[in-house]
Amino acid sequence: MRNDQGDLVAALDFGGTKIAGALVDAGGHLLARARRPTPATEDAATVMDAVAGVLAELGRSVHWSRVRAVGIGSAGPVDASRGTVSPVNVPGWRGFPLVAEVARAVGGLPVTLVGDGVAMTAAEHWRGAARGRANALCMVVSTGVGGGLVLGGRLNPGPTGNAGHIGHISVALDGDPCPCGGRGCVERLASGPNITRRALADGWRPEPGEEASAAAVAAAARAGDAIALASFARAAQALAAGIAATAALVEIEVAVIGGGVAQAGEVLFAPLRERLRDYAALSFTSAVEVLPARLGSDAGLVGAAAAAAERRGLWGPGAGR
Amino acid sequence: MRNDQGDLVAALDFGGTKIAGALVDAGGHLLARARRPTPATEDAATVMDAVAGVLAELGRSVHWSRVRAVGIGSAGPVDASRGTVSPVNVPGWRGFPLVAEVARAVGGLPVTLVGDGVAMTAAEHWRGAARGRANALCMVVSTGVGGGLVLGGRLNPGPTGNAGHIGHISVALDGDPCPCGGRGCVERLASGPNITRRALADGWRPEPGEEASAAAVAAAARAGDAIALASFARAAQALAAGIAATAALVEIEVAVIGGGVAQAGEVLFAPLRERLRDYAALSFTSAVEVLPARLGSDAGLVGAAAAAAERRGLWGPGAGR
Repeated sequence: MRNDQGDLVAALDFGGTKIAGALVDAGGHLLARARRPTPATEDAATVMDAVAGVLAELGRSVHWSRVRAVGIGSAGPVDASRGTVSPVNVPGWRGFPLVAEVARAVGGLPVTLVGDGVAMTAAEHWRGAARGRANALCMVVSTGVGGGLVLGGRLNPGPTGNAGHIGHISVALDGDPCPCGGRGCVERLASGPNITRRALADGWRPEPGEEASAAAVAAAARAGDAIALASFARAAQALAAGIAATAALVEIEVAVIGGGVAQAGEVLFAPLRERLRDYAALSFTSAVEVLPARLGSDAGLVGAAAAAAERRGLWGPGAGR
Repeated sequence: MRNDQGDLVAALDFGGTKIAGALVDAGGHLLARARRPTPATEDAATVMDAVAGVLAELGRSVHWSRVRAVGIGSAGPVDASRGTVSPVNVPGWRGFPLVAEVARAVGGLPVTLVGDGVAMTAAEHWRGAARGRANALCMVVSTGVGGGLVLGGRLNPGPTGNAGHIGHISVALDGDPCPCGGRGCVERLASGPNITRRALADGWRPEPGEEASAAAVAAAARAGDAIALASFARAAQALAAGIAATAALVEIEVAVIGGGVAQAGEVLFAPLRERLRDYAALSFTSAVEVLPARLGSDAGLVGAAAAAAERRGLWGPGAGR
């Protein structure tokens, strides 16, 4: 039920292609929305103008007077301790002081910044598949692989807002170089573009007129194509090793997986659950569950709001109410 | 300075070869000690009798009346949520209710159980190389590889007391099977016996009359033996990948390494610091430091006491004093 009286959080979801904004209430409802394309190749001020435009549009909502805090989920890397962001695909922003700029644009409201993987985690913990779980890893498997952690019943963003960065842990220490500078990272084996690349390298071809994509590989896998199945199986193996590592390190009870590649469904989840038994073999890791994410494209906004509300003690699963 | 008035914790360090006990004060001093060999191959009751003997000896100390809690660090796996232990090398104890048995032996004092890696971490955080650090991984590299985590300034044992289990995360998803049931685990590449095994397999031989051991491989490496150096370099690579994974997942700022293999010094630490640059390449992981542990063989006792004191709010780095 919507609450027409209570505190709201203004949420921003900043990505390489779009900037989305919304006013979010304590029930997770989006009361107002705004959206602009990200002028990703423009200079720093032009990108910030687009953010300010989204905030100005939200500011014209009749609900704005109830906003108590701002939550930002941003493409990374972010540095929450400094309030800066350096999104890989927005070269004009390197160490850009987004928190200070947003605070100025909203007249000094408190601003909470987290990485987009942490925001998605906050959303799934608050309203989705990780609800009620004390210890969880939530992840997005898409063009990249990101994630976040819930520990001891609370979102655990880490000092810089990047904790749960499962896409860039190495599960193959002798593996291929990863654009992050590492080697054999989960993302290098399990992201959508890498699933596609591997299938193509092994001889798979899309249907005539169809683009080569992870969705096309998934469709071929569902139809029984052995190369497509093998490429998903390899991604599943890497995800299983990464999830098992996380379980050994912080005793998660559940891994929640969203993002475009997770849309493949059982083509991904069936081998993932099977391979997890190979890597999560300790007494305290062997029961870890794998679940699909429940929230869709609004997860970034809902999660940015949840992270801010939890941090400011307004509401959310870890705010003590 | 010793405190002759304050609260004490009775600490137990339960391992496959010995059971050590001590009374520990708020300054980390050991006021009384007791020790028995572990009758590792005997039945459950006989093993417990040895533990009770250690406790009885501590109970005869003039300081016993000041004991407010008991802390146990045990060889794993442990299950702190159930109060049970199943030490790999003590087959008579499988799901053995050590917490209840110890509580009974000490007249109902509160008992805190953690794994031995977590205990060592509590000790290094309280009195050693991780002192003052908000986010740290501490590890023991020895016959096995164990560890524990400090997160947000507090010991993070996890729900079952096993968190920080870095020895059994996979850094080589296609690697050799590990006795834990996994594959390519850090321990399988970096433990003392595996350093020795790899050197022997590659043609290294100990000096006449000398036993093949990680210490002997370390001595050969210091003398410039290429095979010995390569075996330590491979262990360092696996540790680097594991430490980098931990940094990406929970944003540790420091990794503290103790145990027999760490005695090798720069033979291990130099390649470890170098390889860490290959795996910890993200903005928020690249500054992670590697330090040798500072506490020696008493770390298990000091840490068991610290874990109990922190949990019971008596004293310790996370107890709010």
